[in-house]
Amino acid sequence: MTKTVMNNTISVDCVIFGFDFEKLNVLLVDRELKDENNGEELFSDLTLTGNHIFENESLENAAARVLFDLTGLENIYLKQFGAFCDPGRLKRPNDQAWLRASGRDPESRIISVGYYSLLATENVTLKWKGRNVKWYPVSEVKDLAFDHMVILKSALQALRRELLHEPIGFELLPEKFTLSQLQKLYEVVLDVELDKRNFRKKIARMKYLIALDEKQKGVAHKPARLYMFSREVYEKTRKEVLDFNI
Amino acid sequence: MTKTVMNNTISVDCVIFGFDFEKLNVLLVDRELKDENNGEELFSDLTLTGNHIFENESLENAAARVLFDLTGLENIYLKQFGAFCDPGRLKRPNDQAWLRASGRDPESRIISVGYYSLLATENVTLKWKGRNVKWYPVSEVKDLAFDHMVILKSALQALRRELLHEPIGFELLPEKFTLSQLQKLYEVVLDVELDKRNFRKKIARMKYLIALDEKQKGVAHKPARLYMFSREVYEKTRKEVLDFNI
Repeated sequence: MTKTVMNNTISVDCVIFGFDFEKLNVLLVDRELKDENNGEELFSDLTLTGNHIFENESLENAAARVLFDLTGLENIYLKQFGAFCDPGRLKRPNDQAWLRASGRDPESRIISVGYYSLLATENVTLKWKGRNVKWYPVSEVKDLAFDHMVILKSALQALRRELLHEPIGFELLPEKFTLSQLQKLYEVVLDVELDKRNFRKKIARMKYLIALDEKQKGVAHKPARLYMFSREVYEKTRKEVLDFNI
Repeated sequence: MTKTVMNNTISVDCVIFGFDFEKLNVLLVDRELKDENNGEELFSDLTLTGNHIFENESLENAAARVLFDLTGLENIYLKQFGAFCDPGRLKRPNDQAWLRASGRDPESRIISVGYYSLLATENVTLKWKGRNVKWYPVSEVKDLAFDHMVILKSALQALRRELLHEPIGFELLPEKFTLSQLQKLYEVVLDVELDKRNFRKKIARMKYLIALDEKQKGVAHKPARLYMFSREVYEKTRKEVLDFNI
């Protein structure tokens, strides 16, 4: 991707979800602002990861670039879920101070297009131009800079909806996983408790879930059987259902 | 909505779907360009309905404004389904000529946020600043200006998906309708043929579909019973289902 001129009006924000077998996490960056005279910290708060697009770059490529710069990973699951352009989205005092400090017109309108991305936390090593970027449990995030709380909630809603209808949960798991880990994933993302027996029944209907002749390693006792997701079987067996699931 | 300055970079495009009991239609505008010297028509092609946003206006309000200017209707179903910003989206010769003629920089990047809207065709009277706007059957639209064909296809995909999971089809029907009209709506939008008996079985489970003590008027023989959609019953009986419909 050729780096040329940035477009000042159009940006992407990436809501990068990670699952660690216990909770759903999101990658956030510390937006620290120091006084330019004495170097004292004026404030420190958290934002989603994002950037402006280059003039010759598509939205998808910009989102993939943010993700690549952060994780070194390519071909990661990325899904556009909304455009955010409320007239007041950059108007809180910290946001205005930050825009001024970074040489931007605080009055200008910036549209952000949201992408969410799914990762198995254990696969990722983080690095971002020396900036402080970390995983935070989604359930503990109460406030973010700009309108990023609105964007995060919207991403979570889109993820939940997608998870009910498409086999995207596997993007949040390592290649091999146990059925308990899969159940936990659904419970955590959808914020529900599932009955194990019912869950196993539903699972049994998923032909694309392949039982391996292999067991969990590194657990003290009763290692569970490992499974894999087969996209090939999924694509073959998938059918458009008219179920009026309403 | 106060009219102030337009934002040159951010626009909305509305994909306004209408159903006439036979086919799914979309509202398109004739983008005519005349030679400024001799008034001869240089070209005439079709676009979706859309506009730039005002600097103090939200995306939603801009989309509602376009819809109001066209139909005089307020509180119409409007759903954001995507942001479109491909670097080449305005680069075809006609698009470039049209941008120049309307005093814009043909090199500038414009992002468009798509909204789709649902109407019962028979409820609508069209008017748009003397511009030529008409209903066209979606299945017959083969080419549009800019990237509007991409936007239209994306809207149709979003509508189909939504129709499978939410009771939005009623937005495309008049207040009272027959079960055959409802079945035809699903068949036309989803591009499938449905078995009448199976369809009636599914319908019987929809508690929010209220049978009226009233029959169709103005039909030659065997007038069918009329039904209504009750949003109140829907909201009460709705439950979040974990169905792994995949």
